[in-house]
Amino acid sequence: MRNTVPPGSTVGVIGGGQLGRMLAEAATPLGIDVVALDPTPNCPAVPPATDQIEAEFDDEEAIRALAERSDVLTVEIELADPDALQSVSADLDVPAHPHPDTIRMTRDKLSEKRRLDAADIPVPAFAAVDSERALRDAFQALGSPLMVKARRGGYDGRGNAIVESVAEATNRFGSLDGLVAEELVPFERELSVIGVRGVGDRRCFPVAENVHEAEILRETLVPARTDDSVRRRAQEVAEGVLNVLDGRGVFGIELFETGDGSVLVNEIAPRPHNSGHYTIEGAVTSQFEQHLRAVLGLPLGGTGLRDPTAMANLLGDGQESRPASVTGVESVLELGDVHLHWYGKRTVRPLRKMGHLTAHHSSLGHARERVQQALEALSFG
Amino acid sequence: MRNTVPPGSTVGVIGGGQLGRMLAEAATPLGIDVVALDPTPNCPAVPPATDQIEAEFDDEEAIRALAERSDVLTVEIELADPDALQSVSADLDVPAHPHPDTIRMTRDKLSEKRRLDAADIPVPAFAAVDSERALRDAFQALGSPLMVKARRGGYDGRGNAIVESVAEATNRFGSLDGLVAEELVPFERELSVIGVRGVGDRRCFPVAENVHEAEILRETLVPARTDDSVRRRAQEVAEGVLNVLDGRGVFGIELFETGDGSVLVNEIAPRPHNSGHYTIEGAVTSQFEQHLRAVLGLPLGGTGLRDPTAMANLLGDGQESRPASVTGVESVLELGDVHLHWYGKRTVRPLRKMGHLTAHHSSLGHARERVQQALEALSFG
Repeated sequence: MRNTVPPGSTVGVIGGGQLGRMLAEAATPLGIDVVALDPTPNCPAVPPATDQIEAEFDDEEAIRALAERSDVLTVEIELADPDALQSVSADLDVPAHPHPDTIRMTRDKLSEKRRLDAADIPVPAFAAVDSERALRDAFQALGSPLMVKARRGGYDGRGNAIVESVAEATNRFGSLDGLVAEELVPFERELSVIGVRGVGDRRCFPVAENVHEAEILRETLVPARTDDSVRRRAQEVAEGVLNVLDGRGVFGIELFETGDGSVLVNEIAPRPHNSGHYTIEGAVTSQFEQHLRAVLGLPLGGTGLRDPTAMANLLGDGQESRPASVTGVESVLELGDVHLHWYGKRTVRPLRKMGHLTAHHSSLGHARERVQQALEALSFG
Repeated sequence: MRNTVPPGSTVGVIGGGQLGRMLAEAATPLGIDVVALDPTPNCPAVPPATDQIEAEFDDEEAIRALAERSDVLTVEIELADPDALQSVSADLDVPAHPHPDTIRMTRDKLSEKRRLDAADIPVPAFAAVDSERALRDAFQALGSPLMVKARRGGYDGRGNAIVESVAEATNRFGSLDGLVAEELVPFERELSVIGVRGVGDRRCFPVAENVHEAEILRETLVPARTDDSVRRRAQEVAEGVLNVLDGRGVFGIELFETGDGSVLVNEIAPRPHNSGHYTIEGAVTSQFEQHLRAVLGLPLGGTGLRDPTAMANLLGDGQESRPASVTGVESVLELGDVHLHWYGKRTVRPLRKMGHLTAHHSSLGHARERVQQALEALSFG
């Protein structure tokens, strides 16, 4: 009999980056142990996680070793291998959440879109691309330019490109197989909803507004600065998405709000999501505690917003990798009301997520200013 | 040159109990490493703390080893030896906060009272007791019954007794040396203020109301349910206390509110305090982050209250020690808005602090009800 009720239950997490670290931060007060599987020595998650298994994300023997120590398995990274997870879970009778089928589906942008479309969940018009001919048809059907994405392996916009011609796509992707083409949505705003599937219970956190640059999240503002009707619609769409997923856990549901106030699903992450970091200080329950509750089959926590909250990512700067050293931390702490979350990465790389900053205040504008002030104070040496 | 600015600075903590654990929980997001010195194998603080030095609190060689790894030394337990701390700090040029003189002073209830009294800070009338004669004089001067306390080694009311006669005191304490007698204050309410001394900056968190039973804290309610004038006076008294202390860090200042609305200082803890646990969810900065900021000489964080907040201790029950197993955790999580903090202790003992529960809400009464509901749901196996 697995011990899924803390204290003393153990969650095995594939991946030990910042999401694993924040899962472990949320686990300690609950008396939950986290063991992380990650190939990077001294990965960000450990400590606070109890222990690390140093192995590749698809190393089935290592996943087996993780399962032997865990009451439930989960993932914090897209690179987790659903096949290995599924076979280990079945062999050792250790549940894996979310369901490997759902992880598999969301790893393939074409499968994901087909699944959502089949459930009448609004997505941008799309077409599978497996040849030059198919891409030409896509330009015909969806217009130009097109958003073209690799079906698999994309992350933070890597594997995505806006292209105007077959030549440009060939130049960018090499092969024209394994792609999906989408109409380029002229969105008004990027939104997201952190949803959670528990045991017979589904909940959504408030709708967040996201600011991306070069396809990397820079800033999240909650509540999203849009009409009530759009927020309601976003919640509704997110609830629809939760219905087509399988297994338990937190999901990051990225949305577009278009000029006419309709809401389309962009992508789904089967794990806690960067745009949900605001929940640590901003919501009654953080997305990380919520994920732990969900995968362990425990009752879910409240998703209410405590105060308007702004979050900004602290991204690596410069042109090359170098040992992480930061200046300006004292100026951030001096602000007194900005929360610094440092991810413990030893190396800074351009645009790498090194940490984040959060502020909450009765005025969202004020919270945002504080976070921006903090961000401007920081730089890498 | 010590690295006191995170990320990458290290705080060496003497003691690795729940306070060390919550210090380490606050340290991780800031990129601060915590190393704890504690004699108990697998002490509560590690993980999330980076490492433990397994040694007695007064083991000077071990404190030296701790200092060699630390940018600053601090304490989370009264049993930390100020002499060892002071000599190691001087030898290795690693600062110790709060100042060992202040730790020494607060370890001796008589010195503490004399110091406060000399600074015109209101304390209950008291007298040193070092003989039967002195105790008789104390009954004469301060009335009967008297609160008699061992000058040193008391904790959670251990070492305290209300006595009506010399015979009763002899029976309770054996020797009548090394005691302090206090008038028994007919207090209206027990209050506390978490104060913090930073670099050229002193701050106080909001005034808390505490409910004790058998001299052990059961419940903290913030803001304290008393008059504005009493709250102002409590802040004023706490600021006075901060002025007579030396070194940096968080201090728990226990107060009595008397029937006529005056405020007396009961005791001072030179460390984060049980009655400040509400700050984790309830205040802009938690007392644990505040202590880390203070001892590292970093700017202090905001002390404002986010919402009215109730905290209740989860105390060990029954008559004897046994392995810690808890039932009812699911019912607590089911409430959705109660925060469980489990301390990771392996053994439950009667009245041992095993964890705490916190709820915040626009109505303090509602928050208190939720916490009480949660507390009633929990029991030890």
